[in-house]
Amino acid sequence: MFYEMTSTIAGFRFAAVSAGIRKDGRVDVALAVADRPAVVAGLFTRNLVRAAPVLVAEDRVRSGLARAILVNAGCANACTGEAGLMAARESTEAVARALGIPVEEVLPASTGVIGVLLPAAKIAGKAKELAKSITPEGYADFAQAICTTDRWVKIAEAKIETSKGDPVSVLGIAKGAGMIHPDVGPPQATMLVFLFTDAVIKQEELQAALIQAADQTFNACSVDGDTSTNDSVIALASGASNIRLTAKEIAPALISVCDKLARSMIADGEGANHVAEIRATGLANDADARRVAQTMATSLLVKTALHGKDANWGRLLAAAGRAGVAFDPKLASIKIGEVEIVKNGLAVGAEAEKEAAEVLKGASYKIEIGLGSGPGAFSYLTSDIGHGYVDVNADYRS
Amino acid sequence: MFYEMTSTIAGFRFAAVSAGIRKDGRVDVALAVADRPAVVAGLFTRNLVRAAPVLVAEDRVRSGLARAILVNAGCANACTGEAGLMAARESTEAVARALGIPVEEVLPASTGVIGVLLPAAKIAGKAKELAKSITPEGYADFAQAICTTDRWVKIAEAKIETSKGDPVSVLGIAKGAGMIHPDVGPPQATMLVFLFTDAVIKQEELQAALIQAADQTFNACSVDGDTSTNDSVIALASGASNIRLTAKEIAPALISVCDKLARSMIADGEGANHVAEIRATGLANDADARRVAQTMATSLLVKTALHGKDANWGRLLAAAGRAGVAFDPKLASIKIGEVEIVKNGLAVGAEAEKEAAEVLKGASYKIEIGLGSGPGAFSYLTSDIGHGYVDVNADYRS
Repeated sequence: MFYEMTSTIAGFRFAAVSAGIRKDGRVDVALAVADRPAVVAGLFTRNLVRAAPVLVAEDRVRSGLARAILVNAGCANACTGEAGLMAARESTEAVARALGIPVEEVLPASTGVIGVLLPAAKIAGKAKELAKSITPEGYADFAQAICTTDRWVKIAEAKIETSKGDPVSVLGIAKGAGMIHPDVGPPQATMLVFLFTDAVIKQEELQAALIQAADQTFNACSVDGDTSTNDSVIALASGASNIRLTAKEIAPALISVCDKLARSMIADGEGANHVAEIRATGLANDADARRVAQTMATSLLVKTALHGKDANWGRLLAAAGRAGVAFDPKLASIKIGEVEIVKNGLAVGAEAEKEAAEVLKGASYKIEIGLGSGPGAFSYLTSDIGHGYVDVNADYRS
Repeated sequence: MFYEMTSTIAGFRFAAVSAGIRKDGRVDVALAVADRPAVVAGLFTRNLVRAAPVLVAEDRVRSGLARAILVNAGCANACTGEAGLMAARESTEAVARALGIPVEEVLPASTGVIGVLLPAAKIAGKAKELAKSITPEGYADFAQAICTTDRWVKIAEAKIETSKGDPVSVLGIAKGAGMIHPDVGPPQATMLVFLFTDAVIKQEELQAALIQAADQTFNACSVDGDTSTNDSVIALASGASNIRLTAKEIAPALISVCDKLARSMIADGEGANHVAEIRATGLANDADARRVAQTMATSLLVKTALHGKDANWGRLLAAAGRAGVAFDPKLASIKIGEVEIVKNGLAVGAEAEKEAAEVLKGASYKIEIGLGSGPGAFSYLTSDIGHGYVDVNADYRS
């Protein structure tokens, strides 16, 4: 999952420091800065319980322009009331001063334990150091600093070829391994995703492309079914390429980057060893197919069977059956990888299941469930759940 | 959780044998027989994928009368198509012949692995032995034979005092530890519940009381969020007491018995150490409160926190926030046992959390979340999820 960037992203600089928010002393505060005010689009958690940085960032994104993103790990600053809002404002204020820009142009984002107040003074104390140390190559440090239970950093990029000059770039940086069942929208893990592009693009075009990309990627993946109070997806466009793009032109690159980041998050699912892409087909419409795929992808019995590399199609079919979507079980077919194990609602046989179990040993594979001849289809990413998940989450706060 | 019955139940006899369906040789076929045709009511899984015994039993319950219930563990006979229906019919036919009663009066129920055809011949081979060995005291053997991953048998009883003579009895026997998120209704784990009463009662009165009881108990509890293809709740009334009861008169006893069985199932949740009753209050209506309580009770992050005895109220509140129900997080309060840890949306303090953590060491406790001043309230039973659950389910079929 290690990703080697081929280039920096024009118009952006990055830095990270250790401010002592995390107990283990690792880098925990990250800063991204655009050389000039950048066009911004954002999607935030639709959880009713929303962290202070989400409220502040969402408000500031409305202006359509932003210069910086200030992120901390080790503290979600969620369920912290007025004091939490103050802390988000104070920390961004300190960074804005150090950068010499208006505070409204600094977007906060936080991840970590819920219910703990952000220690704004610790960040303020590092503001000047952060502002001084930003470099185009700093994105790798940025990606490291925002990690919590992540086993690896998550960086992806895509290039958009145009007839107008050099390719336009999209760089994506994400964190997320647990409390991952994103539901971000206009206005919704803790998944944090930051996208940077040197395209020239209008705010509404960037926002439209971002909604489309999130819906197909982040909103279609799950580690544990729990939607965070802090999920944020923020895209900044520096315009440094001088090439103007529409939503339609930038969408494929955004989707490609978001898909890579979503796969990396799911692969990094707490304690997980496998990524399964569960695709439901043959339903009346895509919304029905999404419900079936999501119900299967969030079933604990399915996820523990995947952990056990067990081609337990009964659990797959039982999960589909409780999705609240109409289909005829007699028409059900299930393929694991290229191996068909269920046909017309019945087991194909022990040999097929043995072959399927071999597929399930892989790091990533596709499970396809056909439930009729309708046009509806949807793919959902999920991970297995095993002892590692219990280890991380039965003892997370201590 | 061991339960000592104080009496047998007038009008019913029970037996169990080992028919070699389970690999481990334990008793795996159970039979309950009413002395005369009994009034019957039944609720079956609302999962769209429904096992053969569910289809057969649901059909036979419609007549309003039944004589016997034939249950096997070790094989769910689900997703087995026409052959599965044949097997359910053949096995009940053999038992009907041995008892000298019509096959339509024998209700089948199965639990075990999905996708494996019921070995009807094994049951048929034991039909005479079963029919001969039924005794009033056999209910304990019956309760043992229907267990799968259960750590203990589940038996409960209640007495209804009337002015008309001796008390009327209700006896309940259940199994269930995993794939427990019942959704039974007219017409919906694998939870199997069998209720026996010596009351005289009309079929529609028994059915109405059963629906009411299931809605407050089985349909309000969860081990893993997975609704089974085989869930069945069947009530038989022998009339042996000669005392006539209405739905309203029998409901409290049914609710009491079903509540005890539901608590026993949740306590026996695969790998679980704790039973939490999560009560949501202050919502606009009971349906909203049910959604909030259910979302919290099925959150993997909540369930692993309970396993870790961690008063992680942030996860509780975050789960409530994604329930899709309107409330003001600023009004939220959370009590664990008698310890208030959140007030007006904010942490009460470290001391309170320490006290709450002590409560969480208990085998069972209440968690109450207040979300406003509305009249809506609902209680949902859940268990913790730990390593034991992964052990049982990542390797169940092998």
